[in-house]
Amino acid sequence: MRPVAVVGVGKTPFGAFPDLDIRSLAVQAGERCLANAHLQPSLIESFYLGNFAGPAFVGQNHLAPYVSTALGIQGVPATRVEAACASSGSAFFHAWTEVAAGVYDLVMVVGVEKMTSQPTARVTEILASAGDLTGEIRAGSTFASLFAMIARRHMYVFGTKREHLAAVAVKNHAAGALNPDAHMRKPITLEQALAGKPIADPLNLYDCSLISDGAAAVILAPLERASELTDKPVRVLGIGQASDYVALDQKEDITTFPAVCRAASTAYRMAGVTPEEIEFAELHDCFTIAEIIASEDLGFVKRGCGGPYAMEGHSSLTGGRPINASGGLKSKGHPVGATGVGQIYDLVQQIRGEAGPRQVARHSLGLAENLGGSGATCVVSILGAA
Amino acid sequence: MRPVAVVGVGKTPFGAFPDLDIRSLAVQAGERCLANAHLQPSLIESFYLGNFAGPAFVGQNHLAPYVSTALGIQGVPATRVEAACASSGSAFFHAWTEVAAGVYDLVMVVGVEKMTSQPTARVTEILASAGDLTGEIRAGSTFASLFAMIARRHMYVFGTKREHLAAVAVKNHAAGALNPDAHMRKPITLEQALAGKPIADPLNLYDCSLISDGAAAVILAPLERASELTDKPVRVLGIGQASDYVALDQKEDITTFPAVCRAASTAYRMAGVTPEEIEFAELHDCFTIAEIIASEDLGFVKRGCGGPYAMEGHSSLTGGRPINASGGLKSKGHPVGATGVGQIYDLVQQIRGEAGPRQVARHSLGLAENLGGSGATCVVSILGAA
Repeated sequence: MRPVAVVGVGKTPFGAFPDLDIRSLAVQAGERCLANAHLQPSLIESFYLGNFAGPAFVGQNHLAPYVSTALGIQGVPATRVEAACASSGSAFFHAWTEVAAGVYDLVMVVGVEKMTSQPTARVTEILASAGDLTGEIRAGSTFASLFAMIARRHMYVFGTKREHLAAVAVKNHAAGALNPDAHMRKPITLEQALAGKPIADPLNLYDCSLISDGAAAVILAPLERASELTDKPVRVLGIGQASDYVALDQKEDITTFPAVCRAASTAYRMAGVTPEEIEFAELHDCFTIAEIIASEDLGFVKRGCGGPYAMEGHSSLTGGRPINASGGLKSKGHPVGATGVGQIYDLVQQIRGEAGPRQVARHSLGLAENLGGSGATCVVSILGAA
Repeated sequence: MRPVAVVGVGKTPFGAFPDLDIRSLAVQAGERCLANAHLQPSLIESFYLGNFAGPAFVGQNHLAPYVSTALGIQGVPATRVEAACASSGSAFFHAWTEVAAGVYDLVMVVGVEKMTSQPTARVTEILASAGDLTGEIRAGSTFASLFAMIARRHMYVFGTKREHLAAVAVKNHAAGALNPDAHMRKPITLEQALAGKPIADPLNLYDCSLISDGAAAVILAPLERASELTDKPVRVLGIGQASDYVALDQKEDITTFPAVCRAASTAYRMAGVTPEEIEFAELHDCFTIAEIIASEDLGFVKRGCGGPYAMEGHSSLTGGRPINASGGLKSKGHPVGATGVGQIYDLVQQIRGEAGPRQVARHSLGLAENLGGSGATCVVSILGAA
């Protein structure tokens, strides 16, 4: 496998955009990405589209050629990947595979989701299709209730407290307030976070990520060609995709995600780095408890210590290892199919030193963790200065 | 890229199976495939699931780990690919890429669709999500009406007749009657084919493929390891995936599919064979006109001559180059997400000489063409005796 670099990124803001349909969002991110890489669309050799539920949210399937042709990318393989909330992380993984294995030189990935045109109850139902319909979902679960059970168990086993969950929300809202592309730019206090409207006990409104529209795009190339295309190449040092059971009741222990541990192990080994060396990270905080568990599964802290780690400020923007300097899914927004590539966008901005007021101090080695469902898919990517 | 072989195949019958849910179908095909390759699931290194519209047909998304874990495949990358009716053809293409590029040795692909639990009107609506929702579909088109326009234009430009379309139906029903796994094992006469219930003029009921449930599976390995796993390896000699506009109105000429031509060109070049050398083929006859155009775009006959070619018997089971000896989508059935891998299954059966009463005379070099939508995705695969 040869070294791979990110040579271009592009993104729409995340938010509610009633005037932009799914293709317009994807094209906007894609065009910005092509411009960022100084590339004509005709040079792209393979195209990936990460999308979770376009057919359910807006009725449009077969999205890969639908978007690629609108971008002026003609003829080449155009492939949609769906892996719940890890859809575009997985698309990124497969694009990396193609470049690393020498199959193609220039591969583009767009992640997109258009969610806000549906009422919240329908969004909840569509999101639930990423769970096990014949079991947990038929029994009445939603993703909020699944993660509520996970949080409750984490509290029981490790003594994690409501305040720890709230601390994650406060931290990510604070960072997101500095991100002009974030869906919700609103700092909150610990008191506010604790007093949110109940959703699924112990999770309240401030523990849940946002329902957003948005798109993000990235172009990969072999490292040896990167300097032709950009003066700020970012290297993909390590990456792993892993899988696990879809249904929560099939898992032996719901306070850890084996797919995260496995994807991370592959990525760390490939990159030749340890968890301690990671300087900053974008973690999949679909719910606050998910960031806490991810920080443990990735080896940033010992198991059970993720809550205090956030509470004590270690993962704040000015802490030792900032987590979700972008605001995370919690504040930046969570257009499901765009989230994985959106995280890559944020790592690249940081590594290039282009993150503005949310720029982290040490920014040469970052990690992104993109989780699908309640842990059935995970993609972990480690990026660094080239 | 290294040579790749099919080392195992498995399949459910195609038909209406009210007692089997989507996962049961996929697992049945997958288990037969693992047994056919004499492999334990724990040896699979990467898993692909081709599925078009599981979320719409049965409400279940995130299908790759949902199926892989049920097969006992743990931890490895499990990825769903969606490309309309070419979903599992595309999944097969990406699995081939991984093995050919040396990323993994053993990669499994399952294609599945569960369609018959929805009423026909809803099935038609779900299928239409593979077209352009903001244009042709909003204007009232269905896939039958899109292909009716294609047929009408082909008639106008080339003099293709209703009898030519009917001849494709008669031929594929005759072959399918010999296939114990076919959905509709019913030979029909030309008169019957011409007198079918009108669907979208000039297409009638016998010009349309079936709404089916079903699954098919395949395992790929490097050719050098194939002999460990099977005494009947089949080699993937060439393969290509290509893309084009989703909306019919964006195409310059609707009597040809550029994605088919391009995918075929890639596959022929890779295999080092000419269209003339292809001994038999499985073509994507979602509608009879689609087989006619495919036979032209693949270079089996000159443009405009696909109708007479079928009518004169050249592509019959006992003709010079049998097309759809399995019965095709028309008679074998068309569980959308299973169709691409189902075609690979049929090529492998023929090349191995295991096709029973529908065995074709010359069976060392076969081609499969899997079309998505009205031509926005195409995957062409050329398989031969190893």
